[in-house]
Amino acid sequence: MSWADWLAEQRAAREAAGLQRTLRPREPDEDLVDLAGNDYLGLSRHPEVRRAAADAALTWGAGAGASRLVTGTTALHAELERALAEFTGRDAALVLSTGYHANLAAVTALADRDALIVSDAHVHASLIDAARLSRATVEVVPHNRVDAVRSALAGAGRRRAIVLTESVFSVLGDAAPLPQLAEVCAEHGALLVVDEAHGVGVVGDGGRGLVHAHGLAGHPQVVLTATLSKSLGAMGGAVLGSHAVLDHLVNRARPFVFDTALAPAPTAGALRALHLLRAEPALPSRIHRRGGELADHLGVPRSAGAVLSVPMPSPRAALAAQAAALEAGVRVGCFRPPSVPDGTSRLRITTRAGLPEDRWAHALDVLTRLTRRMT
Amino acid sequence: MSWADWLAEQRAAREAAGLQRTLRPREPDEDLVDLAGNDYLGLSRHPEVRRAAADAALTWGAGAGASRLVTGTTALHAELERALAEFTGRDAALVLSTGYHANLAAVTALADRDALIVSDAHVHASLIDAARLSRATVEVVPHNRVDAVRSALAGAGRRRAIVLTESVFSVLGDAAPLPQLAEVCAEHGALLVVDEAHGVGVVGDGGRGLVHAHGLAGHPQVVLTATLSKSLGAMGGAVLGSHAVLDHLVNRARPFVFDTALAPAPTAGALRALHLLRAEPALPSRIHRRGGELADHLGVPRSAGAVLSVPMPSPRAALAAQAAALEAGVRVGCFRPPSVPDGTSRLRITTRAGLPEDRWAHALDVLTRLTRRMT
Ligand SMILES: Cc1ncc(COP(=O)(O)O)c(C=O)c1O
Ligand SMILES: Cc1ncc(COP(=O)(O)O)c(C=O)c1O
Repeated sequence: MSWADWLAEQRAAREAAGLQRTLRPREPDEDLVDLAGNDYLGLSRHPEVRRAAADAALTWGAGAGASRLVTGTTALHAELERALAEFTGRDAALVLSTGYHANLAAVTALADRDALIVSDAHVHASLIDAARLSRATVEVVPHNRVDAVRSALAGAGRRRAIVLTESVFSVLGDAAPLPQLAEVCAEHGALLVVDEAHGVGVVGDGGRGLVHAHGLAGHPQVVLTATLSKSLGAMGGAVLGSHAVLDHLVNRARPFVFDTALAPAPTAGALRALHLLRAEPALPSRIHRRGGELADHLGVPRSAGAVLSVPMPSPRAALAAQAAALEAGVRVGCFRPPSVPDGTSRLRITTRAGLPEDRWAHALDVLTRLTRRMT
Repeated sequence: MSWADWLAEQRAAREAAGLQRTLRPREPDEDLVDLAGNDYLGLSRHPEVRRAAADAALTWGAGAGASRLVTGTTALHAELERALAEFTGRDAALVLSTGYHANLAAVTALADRDALIVSDAHVHASLIDAARLSRATVEVVPHNRVDAVRSALAGAGRRRAIVLTESVFSVLGDAAPLPQLAEVCAEHGALLVVDEAHGVGVVGDGGRGLVHAHGLAGHPQVVLTATLSKSLGAMGGAVLGSHAVLDHLVNRARPFVFDTALAPAPTAGALRALHLLRAEPALPSRIHRRGGELADHLGVPRSAGAVLSVPMPSPRAALAAQAAALEAGVRVGCFRPPSVPDGTSRLRITTRAGLPEDRWAHALDVLTRLTRRMT
């Protein structure tokens, strides 16, 4: 088949299934309540965070100019790494350009053909891609089933094994059984890689994440990945763990070694957001209070984090609900295949600690009436 | 083997081979001539570029807040995409978080198990990873050998085929035979993916790249990838091509769909750099004049782009030469395995259009004396 025919056929299939997407640019000053994005604490637009990002661009330039190992490592990167490690209670941190890079880097540098990867069925695309890219044998186990992880590890034999999970899952908003997973991993000498993209800034003491909350931060066999693009309001990713693991990544992780360093502005923005979070440790608790209220109103299970998942009967129904909410001034996310782990289209609503009370109340009202009508 | 033993063994092997690397943070105000980074035109630190990046952070916040398809697409992204497409003469552009993401996205969305990828032996790690991740059959052909590409394509049968190359290669600085590759691809109905990371801003009319220079910009079977992190002075990546290809990527490329959008500051920085480049189309020619001068002084072949490659007898000799240059106030790159396609350690020296004449003359002098001593 020619490329032109193949592209046309793929598009027709998407259109028939109601899955065709297009990009819609937004302006900076929209008069909407945004419950679709991941800026959970509102720090991306905090005046101090904006100012820190702007100052970094003025001082350092728009880019870092090279990969981290060449000349791209600035004093800002080093400071952010120290602050992230200290905040999450880990030995050390390594900052990468995206959370996606962080997952690719951690998994591909550690796992090779001789390794076994045991992956939760609901992990993020970046972890799935990372496992595939590593060339390790990959065993996918049912979501949050510790027994399944145990049997998979029992079959590892002499292979080095790695278990992949998220702390708070990105689409359904549920939490992983981290203490049990850590115990099973310890029994089998396996590494546990925990993606805290939706955990850091959201759960645990002052937003230190679920690994910290469970007292696992000092555990050398736990490797943590995180993003700077959600509650820290900027962009970028990080891997946090023992010095031995991070030294290995610096030398061997291709998505780290062969990529230009994170630009100064988002590096400084994330650093300032982290300072603000440390200075106001009660901030994340607002996510949970509001999230609980919203879940109760909508009659869906409460979230372990900031993400509320509202199942819809079809991709088209999800789109219609999203459009109706937008009409009423509230933007929510709409996840359709392939962005959902279980094939069920849904609204994805994030709770925002930064929102003023009246705007939050308005959103609550709109969404409650809407879902009552839809379901 | 336990994880701790494996990590220790890996490190010992690196140390024995002289390949252990560590990160060295730099300050913003170093008094060095930096010929190691990729900010070829000096635009990263241009006052207007810094200002544009800073203003974007103040207006939009430190991050885009969500993936491009959710709410991460700002008016800035749309404007940059229009400007990039117009500059390179392509139908449309899609901006991603890194050049690495751009290559992963382009290749994995287009190639699948039923495709054949024919890849030049010297392509960048991100294209190698992309090919691996796609699950297509991958055939690696010797560097810049059009006949080898032709025979590989002849064996494609009914499979959709993609050929991967760079325009100007990142380590050796040589150019790909694009017209011949495009012709062979056209004969076989194959796509040609050209990574212009080191081409845009450097070669062709006003820095429009090698695809444009060869009159291939309007070719629907040519897909171009680029980075915003080198001559455009910021960070990020782009894929440029037909509307059909980009529409497919928007819908299917996992490293696009599942990744937070590029932050406002680097987006605006790259946009301003592009405006400056358009306003001063003679800027890239300075790279070639200086590069030619340096190559002649060092007795190495001239570069097609901004990268001069100076082979060294061993990894340790390369490190020693780099240290001696630094001592004299000139920073150059040092590439050792696995960052070199042919296993030969080398100095990698980039020519910088932005440098004042006296600093350039100093660097020329230091490097000439140094390599005369070393070789
Ligand atoms: C669980 C999870 N991991 C990783 C990522 C990737 O992070 P980033 O957007 O910073 O690349 C995301 C979201 O984008 C995510 O939800
Ligand atoms: C040829 C080539 N392609 C892609 C990349 C990746 O670009 P980025 O650093 O923007 O991720 C690089 C360098 O980093 C490169 O040299």
